[in-house]
Amino acid sequence: MKERELIDTIHALIGPEKIGSLLCGIGDDCAVVRKTKELVLLYSMDTLIETVHFDRRWHPPGLLGKKAVSVNVSDIAAMGGRPCYLLFSLGLPSGFDEDWVLRLSKGVAEGCRRYDCALIGGDTVRSPEGVSLTLSVVGEMAKNQVLYRHGARAGDIVYVSGPLGLAAAGLALYTDNIGGKDEFSRLYGAHLDPTARVKLGRILAESGLVHAMMDLSDGLATDLAHLCRQSRLGARIFQKQLPFDPALDKAATLLGRDSLQWMISGGEDFELLLTAPPGATKKLQEVVANSGHLLYPIGTISQGHEVQLVSDGSTEGPLERSIDFLGFDHFNPK
Amino acid sequence: MKERELIDTIHALIGPEKIGSLLCGIGDDCAVVRKTKELVLLYSMDTLIETVHFDRRWHPPGLLGKKAVSVNVSDIAAMGGRPCYLLFSLGLPSGFDEDWVLRLSKGVAEGCRRYDCALIGGDTVRSPEGVSLTLSVVGEMAKNQVLYRHGARAGDIVYVSGPLGLAAAGLALYTDNIGGKDEFSRLYGAHLDPTARVKLGRILAESGLVHAMMDLSDGLATDLAHLCRQSRLGARIFQKQLPFDPALDKAATLLGRDSLQWMISGGEDFELLLTAPPGATKKLQEVVANSGHLLYPIGTISQGHEVQLVSDGSTEGPLERSIDFLGFDHFNPK
Repeated sequence: MKERELIDTIHALIGPEKIGSLLCGIGDDCAVVRKTKELVLLYSMDTLIETVHFDRRWHPPGLLGKKAVSVNVSDIAAMGGRPCYLLFSLGLPSGFDEDWVLRLSKGVAEGCRRYDCALIGGDTVRSPEGVSLTLSVVGEMAKNQVLYRHGARAGDIVYVSGPLGLAAAGLALYTDNIGGKDEFSRLYGAHLDPTARVKLGRILAESGLVHAMMDLSDGLATDLAHLCRQSRLGARIFQKQLPFDPALDKAATLLGRDSLQWMISGGEDFELLLTAPPGATKKLQEVVANSGHLLYPIGTISQGHEVQLVSDGSTEGPLERSIDFLGFDHFNPK
Repeated sequence: MKERELIDTIHALIGPEKIGSLLCGIGDDCAVVRKTKELVLLYSMDTLIETVHFDRRWHPPGLLGKKAVSVNVSDIAAMGGRPCYLLFSLGLPSGFDEDWVLRLSKGVAEGCRRYDCALIGGDTVRSPEGVSLTLSVVGEMAKNQVLYRHGARAGDIVYVSGPLGLAAAGLALYTDNIGGKDEFSRLYGAHLDPTARVKLGRILAESGLVHAMMDLSDGLATDLAHLCRQSRLGARIFQKQLPFDPALDKAATLLGRDSLQWMISGGEDFELLLTAPPGATKKLQEVVANSGHLLYPIGTISQGHEVQLVSDGSTEGPLERSIDFLGFDHFNPK
């Protein structure tokens, strides 16, 4: 059973039955609950497990604590919201390293300051094997500005907020014991200390120009497939338009890996993925540029139900191929 | 380092810095956040880890899922609130038993129905060793009815909402391979399928008669010490007044254990612990009895800072002894 099938099965079994104030339950980056007439609350939860999601050999505890916050807060950014509060549950093996835990906690504190949110609770438990971190984040935003996954329309342009595959390449470098090289500093940084695009997300939500949005956590192929499935549409992505960091090719050559693979299915990019109508292009780029950000158009939303990657002709294989759900599956890692 | 010291250290490091709408951060059963002028939101999080908090050999997955909900919801009951939403993060080892996971999920669904709350999100991750469950619950209540730990006053009567030590005895029976005995069914049930005292908690909060409240999760000795510390007071508990289930003595005799030990430091009782002024006794008992519940007076809040147990004279040892923080410590289990 794949992770996605398992999640679908569980959701079918225990989907929300409480209508009332629940505007969106399972299936988007956050659950959305009415707070007042104008405001909604956003809720999300993420777990990071040692050896599965992080490796203490190369992940400094301070950066790991900060990353745990960023990963969680990124779900709030994905809706266009503002993070407010965090809950943090920490599982620790017997005889844990106290200094390591304090540095991890300082990292969580730094993450909270970075995104202007407060730690308000949690749990501390013993874990028989390795460290585990579960964070739950509470966000808030205007009800009429929430950006869901399901809002894409045929003809929309698909954008991402930054280069893809960097975190996957950084992880691959560490896994192969290639750390400490200046030329790969952006790749290491993307893996160790990603940034949740909170400010950009809020600007996009406030602009009123965006139809659908989510964050890139499982890789473009999988995440865009989710957005398309929920919008009941397909997408065509153009390989040559994918924003690219030259360090990615250097790392791919060094490791004998495929940089395109990292870009479309690497995971942990934490950039925003969004769609907006072609007529909004100029205004959207202006609004975003005014805040010092960039958006990269990478394709279009189409009729149908598949995510197609249109090759640039420089590689072998078909010019157009389906990349639906080619991302990382935690239960079936490649 | 003990669990309590670790938690204190982390809290000091990353205590909430956001005043504004945060009425209570770390340190009570739930964080309390202003929702509207009259209403507050309650947040809590709990993690259950295989081999530390549960054992699959005797815990049926359906009851485990339900228990995970009850444990979490009990924190809402502890403030007098109403549970609304749950987030659920599930860590599963590779090659997990699909049927077991589905039964667990059905248990979570049943738990949600039991307390009239909805599952609105979560995460599913791979765990290298054993199953882990983290739940986060969102509750709601009237702002002027919230019952905190810090409200106790000298002279208050201390009450519990039911017999103590049953869950600890049930766990001890299973650990010693003594399952399936009718005479111990209440002990097994208390361990496998505890009840969060949501209705009673709400009645008590609405009564306006209670000064301080919390739930009993780490054992009377530890939990009452928390309540006393936060109220800057002490307490005297009378052993002969502790509500008692005769099955407890039978189990203690069979296992060569001390039933008093289970009652004061067993943990996982999930009964409510509360204090109210002596003048409210009659009205409080009436209100509670009208809803089909009972409250057991077990002692008084006193000046000082220690929790004293006053013996009934039937056991050896001093007639009065300190039992501060004698409860279960996950990092230093006895």
